[in-house]
Amino acid sequence: MIVLFTDFGLEGPYLGQVRAVLLREAPGVPVIDLFADAPAHDPMAAAYLLAAYAVSFPAGTVFLAVVDPGVGGARRAAAVRADRRWYVGPDNGLFEPLVRRAESAAWWEIPVEGEALSATFHGRDLFAPAAARLARGLPPGGPERPPAELRRPDWPDDLARIVYVDRFGNAMTGLRAATLPAGAALEAGGTVLSRARTFVDVPEGAAFWYENANGLAEIAVNRGRADAVLGLAVGSEIKIRAAGRAA
Amino acid sequence: MIVLFTDFGLEGPYLGQVRAVLLREAPGVPVIDLFADAPAHDPMAAAYLLAAYAVSFPAGTVFLAVVDPGVGGARRAAAVRADRRWYVGPDNGLFEPLVRRAESAAWWEIPVEGEALSATFHGRDLFAPAAARLARGLPPGGPERPPAELRRPDWPDDLARIVYVDRFGNAMTGLRAATLPAGAALEAGGTVLSRARTFVDVPEGAAFWYENANGLAEIAVNRGRADAVLGLAVGSEIKIRAAGRAA
Amino acid sequence: MIVLFTDFGLEGPYLGQVRAVLLREAPGVPVIDLFADAPAHDPMAAAYLLAAYAVSFPAGTVFLAVVDPGVGGARRAAAVRADRRWYVGPDNGLFEPLVRRAESAAWWEIPVEGEALSATFHGRDLFAPAAARLARGLPPGGPERPPAELRRPDWPDDLARIVYVDRFGNAMTGLRAATLPAGAALEAGGTVLSRARTFVDVPEGAAFWYENANGLAEIAVNRGRADAVLGLAVGSEIKIRAAGRAA
Repeated sequence: MIVLFTDFGLEGPYLGQVRAVLLREAPGVPVIDLFADAPAHDPMAAAYLLAAYAVSFPAGTVFLAVVDPGVGGARRAAAVRADRRWYVGPDNGLFEPLVRRAESAAWWEIPVEGEALSATFHGRDLFAPAAARLARGLPPGGPERPPAELRRPDWPDDLARIVYVDRFGNAMTGLRAATLPAGAALEAGGTVLSRARTFVDVPEGAAFWYENANGLAEIAVNRGRADAVLGLAVGSEIKIRAAGRAA
Repeated sequence: MIVLFTDFGLEGPYLGQVRAVLLREAPGVPVIDLFADAPAHDPMAAAYLLAAYAVSFPAGTVFLAVVDPGVGGARRAAAVRADRRWYVGPDNGLFEPLVRRAESAAWWEIPVEGEALSATFHGRDLFAPAAARLARGLPPGGPERPPAELRRPDWPDDLARIVYVDRFGNAMTGLRAATLPAGAALEAGGTVLSRARTFVDVPEGAAFWYENANGLAEIAVNRGRADAVLGLAVGSEIKIRAAGRAA
Repeated sequence: MIVLFTDFGLEGPYLGQVRAVLLREAPGVPVIDLFADAPAHDPMAAAYLLAAYAVSFPAGTVFLAVVDPGVGGARRAAAVRADRRWYVGPDNGLFEPLVRRAESAAWWEIPVEGEALSATFHGRDLFAPAAARLARGLPPGGPERPPAELRRPDWPDDLARIVYVDRFGNAMTGLRAATLPAGAALEAGGTVLSRARTFVDVPEGAAFWYENANGLAEIAVNRGRADAVLGLAVGSEIKIRAAGRAA
C-alpha cells in the first residue's frame, strides 16, 4: 500500500498526476490519500502529524510524504525505513520525529536528477517513482547514508503547537496525549481547557481537549468550531498546565 | 461495492483511514465516495439525501453511512437491509426515510465494543469493519432486531427543507419531484419559483426549480448561485405552492 | 486508464456517481481525477488547460472531459481521437486547442439520447458510458463526422489569460512557455513579471513567472499568493512583453 501525505491539496492536477505515475510504475498497488492538506510549507508541523498517523499503518506501507518548500533548491531527497515502514520525501526534517521515536531506522539518499525532472514538482517526478520502486519490493534507487546525515533539526519530543485544523474546526496539537501528566489542562488562545473523553461528555458550546483517535491531544468545542472560538490556526502555541495549578 | 456517505469532509485523515480499514478487511472490493460532505451533524437532512441517492445503486451495494453527532454516547449501531442493499451506520434516524420507502427491510444491531474502538471515530473503528464484513458476503456481526426497535423519528414522507448545497450554489430539497402536485411552485427565501426542465430553458440570472438527476426538487439560478441569491443553506424551509394559487 | 477532467467539484455526489457508472461499465479500468475543479462553465479556459495536461498521458488514455454550461440544450456530444488518446465530452470548443495541436485527429458524434438520460447530468448518463466503451476497446457509439464539423471556435494558438488558480494562489496562464520569446516578461494585474526557474530562486514575497511542470507559463509569489497580490482570477488577461522593452 502507498499512502499519500502531502500539502498539494485535493484540488487541481497534483494528486492525479502523482497517482498516474504510481499506476504506471507500480500497477495494482493500492494508493490511499491520508492527508492532502498537511500543513502547507511547514515541515515541522507536518512532521509531528505524520509521526502520529503513520504508526497505525501495517508493516510494509510506503508513505509518499511531501511538504517541501525547498523544492528545486539544494535540499536532498530521502527514503527512510523506520520500524518496517518506508517514507519517501524531502530531507527537511519531515522524518525527524518518527525516526527519533522508532526502534530502528535507516535511510538512503535518492539522487535528485533525471531527464523528466521538473524544477517544481518533485512529488510527481522524483518521489512518486521512488515510492513505486519500494512498493514493488525493489531497493531504494540510491546509496544508504549514515543515520547522522539525515537532517535532524533540534525539535522537541512533542510539539506544543496546533498542527492541523479539520473541517469542523477541531484543532489537533503535536502533543501525544499519553505523554501529558495525569490531569493536565491545556491552555490555548488564553483559555484553559480540561480534558474530556469525547464530545457528548461536555455541554453544547463547551471547549475541551481530548485524546483523538490517533493519540494526539485535540482541542474541540461540542457542536462548535474550536478554531473560531479560541482563535487557533496551524502554528498556534499551546501551554501545558499541570494538575492542581490554578488557571 | 462499498459506497461512502459521510460528513467527514474530503480533507484531513478521516476518509483515508476508513479506506485503509476497508482495504485491509475487504481487499479488492471497490470503494466509492458518494458524499463526503453530507449535512454535518444533521442526521435528518442527511437521511433524505441518502434515501434519494441510494436507490440508483445496484442490489448488493453496501453503504457506509455516517452522520453521527452522538458518537461515543448511548446511540446504537445498525446494519440495515432494505430492498437488497445494505446500510451500516448509527441508529439515529439516518435510515428512517429509506426504510419507510422500502418494500422490505430488516436490521441487525452491531455491538459497540472492541479493543480498537476509539471514543470519537466509529466510522473507522466500528462501521468500516462492519461494512467490510457485509461486502465480503458475511452476516452482520450482531443479532437481528425487530423492525420496530430501529430508531424511527416522526419525520415526514418528504422533507420541505434544503438538504444540500453544491459547489455551484444549487440547493437540493428533501422533496421528491414526483410527489409534488402538477404545476406546483416552490417558495424559498421569500421567492416563488416555477418549475423548469433545466438551466438552458430559463434566462441567465433567473431562479427556478427542477427535478435533479436523482429525482429531488432542486433550486437553481442559471449561471448564478441560488444559495446566495435566495439566502438558502442546509435546513432552510421550503413551501409548496399548489398551481393556480397567487404568489 | 480513464482520466476525469471536469468542473463538477470534488464535493457532492457528482464524481462518485460518475465513478459508479465507470465501475459498472468498465470494471477493472483505473480511473484518475486530473481536475475536478476545471474552470467552471468556461469551456475556453478549460480547453487550454486540458490541452496542456493531456499530452503527458500515455497513448490509449481516455479523457472524460466535461465543462458543459450548455447541458440539456442543443450542443452535440463528441468522442475525439487525437494523437492516440480519446476525449469524450460536449462539442463546445473544449477540444479545439488539442485538436489543432495534434498531428492526427478524428471525431465521432455520440447520440444525445437514451432512456436513462437526465436533462442535467450528461457526465454521468451520456459521457461516462461512452468513455467506458472506449476504455474497453469498443468503437464510439455513434457515426464518424468530418473534422470540419467539430465545433472549432476562432480561438488563439495560446490563451493570454489565467486559466487556473491553485490552492496556493499560483495562477496558470494558457500560454505554453516554450512559445514565448526568449527573455519575455509577462504583465499581469498591472505588474511586469520576469521569468525565474523556480520559487527558491527569488526572494520571499517576490512575484515572477516560470514554466510549470506541464509547460504552461505560471505566475507565482514565493511564499505568497499571486492571485491575491496581483488581483488575478480565472479569465484575467495577461500581456506578453518582449525582452528589451521598458516596463
